[in-house]
Amino acid sequence: MAIDKLTAGFRVFRAKYFDQRPEIYEDLVKAGQSPGVLVIACSDSRVDPAILLNAEPGELFVVRNVANLVPPYQPDGHYHGTSAALEFAVRDLGVRDVVVLGHSRCGGMEALRRSLAGDPPSREFIGPWVSIAEHAECRHDIGDPDLSRHLEESAIRTSIVNLRTFPWVADAERAGKIALHGWWFSIEAGALFALQADGSFAPMN
Amino acid sequence: MAIDKLTAGFRVFRAKYFDQRPEIYEDLVKAGQSPGVLVIACSDSRVDPAILLNAEPGELFVVRNVANLVPPYQPDGHYHGTSAALEFAVRDLGVRDVVVLGHSRCGGMEALRRSLAGDPPSREFIGPWVSIAEHAECRHDIGDPDLSRHLEESAIRTSIVNLRTFPWVADAERAGKIALHGWWFSIEAGALFALQADGSFAPMN
Amino acid sequence: MAIDKLTAGFRVFRAKYFDQRPEIYEDLVKAGQSPGVLVIACSDSRVDPAILLNAEPGELFVVRNVANLVPPYQPDGHYHGTSAALEFAVRDLGVRDVVVLGHSRCGGMEALRRSLAGDPPSREFIGPWVSIAEHAECRHDIGDPDLSRHLEESAIRTSIVNLRTFPWVADAERAGKIALHGWWFSIEAGALFALQADGSFAPMN
Amino acid sequence: MAIDKLTAGFRVFRAKYFDQRPEIYEDLVKAGQSPGVLVIACSDSRVDPAILLNAEPGELFVVRNVANLVPPYQPDGHYHGTSAALEFAVRDLGVRDVVVLGHSRCGGMEALRRSLAGDPPSREFIGPWVSIAEHAECRHDIGDPDLSRHLEESAIRTSIVNLRTFPWVADAERAGKIALHGWWFSIEAGALFALQADGSFAPMN
Repeated sequence: MAIDKLTAGFRVFRAKYFDQRPEIYEDLVKAGQSPGVLVIACSDSRVDPAILLNAEPGELFVVRNVANLVPPYQPDGHYHGTSAALEFAVRDLGVRDVVVLGHSRCGGMEALRRSLAGDPPSREFIGPWVSIAEHAECRHDIGDPDLSRHLEESAIRTSIVNLRTFPWVADAERAGKIALHGWWFSIEAGALFALQADGSFAPMN
Repeated sequence: MAIDKLTAGFRVFRAKYFDQRPEIYEDLVKAGQSPGVLVIACSDSRVDPAILLNAEPGELFVVRNVANLVPPYQPDGHYHGTSAALEFAVRDLGVRDVVVLGHSRCGGMEALRRSLAGDPPSREFIGPWVSIAEHAECRHDIGDPDLSRHLEESAIRTSIVNLRTFPWVADAERAGKIALHGWWFSIEAGALFALQADGSFAPMN
Repeated sequence: MAIDKLTAGFRVFRAKYFDQRPEIYEDLVKAGQSPGVLVIACSDSRVDPAILLNAEPGELFVVRNVANLVPPYQPDGHYHGTSAALEFAVRDLGVRDVVVLGHSRCGGMEALRRSLAGDPPSREFIGPWVSIAEHAECRHDIGDPDLSRHLEESAIRTSIVNLRTFPWVADAERAGKIALHGWWFSIEAGALFALQADGSFAPMN
Repeated sequence: MAIDKLTAGFRVFRAKYFDQRPEIYEDLVKAGQSPGVLVIACSDSRVDPAILLNAEPGELFVVRNVANLVPPYQPDGHYHGTSAALEFAVRDLGVRDVVVLGHSRCGGMEALRRSLAGDPPSREFIGPWVSIAEHAECRHDIGDPDLSRHLEESAIRTSIVNLRTFPWVADAERAGKIALHGWWFSIEAGALFALQADGSFAPMN
């Protein structure tokens, strides 16, 4: 059922991009991809970067994981999916912008909130993964009604900090070759907020 | 420039989904997300699942990493982004279908091909990451002109095999509660192929 | 060539509305059409109401002719295409809103401007047709640089006036069953202006 | 309500074409319109040419009236909206293709069927207008269950015949500068049929 709808959706895509506007993929095959932007977004079905930013094929190189987290630089030979994608985007594709795209009602940050409150979900992978975002800055009063938002914003700041632990990101940023952006999307209000130099988030019009 | 185009794209999204059809997000906020499908796709800008499958907000829970790889089950307390997303999708959201979506001209599989040929790219994270797909099955003759496609298909098979190393995935599949799909997209032909029971890939109409 | 692109476009439409979201046309077949709005728009390729208003199938009943003109009520048994469509929309379909949608750079109003300046285009049908919009109100100084816009706005006002010469439109408006709207679209600015009670046009947000 | 949805739709259009892809309208303003195709379509809300053919701004010059009818050539100085649009498209814009686009469940042809059956709707304009399509060819047995489809197809053939009564259309067609097409859309099946040289309609691709 859901799968039938997806294969029907593929026929829309195929007719649109291979029948009606074939030049787009002809270029993307011939010249290869050259996206200008890397987006690190949440896996949440309500926050798809291509839908949210009305993107065309070829425009966005996208990493999606729970809570749009970037772990710190750990070149230890283990599997690091997000770091591998970051490496490919920055060193091989030469993207000019990196956007960490967080959002409200994040299930990953809710799991972190429960852990901080002493009631961690009984799961094997979520806990360790979202602990990337756990540090002193986010230890607000557990009863704070805005705690979820604080955690979501804090996780974006942490991911930006972690991006700079990768030496080739820090170098590129210093050289003015790359810009790092932190965005937070309110799924209630349909509004986008951008991380400012002072650490706060301000509405983007 | 690229960023300006994205913020313009956000205004399209906002007008479309918050001004013109507000009921979609009202439901997604009130009831929470309940996507029927988890898609594990490549970060490649040419293979965006929402674009390829013409999806609406709320329909797809999406993981994107280099070469759409699922690592084997390793509950060791380290950071496992893909496993955490898989866990959340299967155990918390209860998706009914998992699609591993590979594609032609995959940069990750090209990096693996070079490693197999004794010429690995000088990178820190890509090599270990794509080694997930490296095993006996894929050791074709290095000179085989179809080696890239063999690797891409093999990686999809490996990810499906690895999915079944997660006990709660294997259990759910045995109980008929979840179905695993392997798809390969040709960006040259605009065609989609599905992994068959015999391990081959057949065109989906 | 252009035709091939259109048939490719039809495949997009077919996949989108008959494969992926079949319920829309199933309803439109079973229940018949019941558009809430009649739009009287120009034939100009740059001012398509479905594109301009991001409409879905079934939402707009549309008349398109040169310069979005409504002729006065003339029930004389001759062919009156616009009046027949107006009659069907108001009396048979019961639309609640009628929008006369004009625009800048209108070729029909340019033909009228040339006629007023004593240099009518040598055509058989355009001249008589656009003369619907010709009357005292629009006789500005021929040298007025804003004459085209004056004519375009004046034509919208005239069409609204002519709509009220149809007794069943005037009755429906008096009874509060129908609302008449005059809109002018600037193709340079991408902005929409609405006719006010005082005859002027004001920007819609 | 319906109007609010349309103004929201306009904001989608504005963001999409003026914010995100401004080059399209910049070209359409600077160079003027140069659509390759004139479409003569029905006013029916279920058969919008831009939606059906997935068209972009600037691609289609469109006439819409009840039952997509072209009256015969009558250069008598009266108001002829469809003829004026035809004249402008062929003589001023130089379109290469003219498509008469009919469809199933046409309310105009239903009105004609009732007239032929001796039960004309009590309306002032519809009857005379749809009588354009009334002639010997369409006088099937009134009880024929396929009568509506016969009338719809017949009306398309008549419009094509009438197009050729305009001397500058006939000349352009003889000179190979313009091609005339008759298409019929089934809103039940989502299928398009094309008028053949022998007068029949055959499914397109």
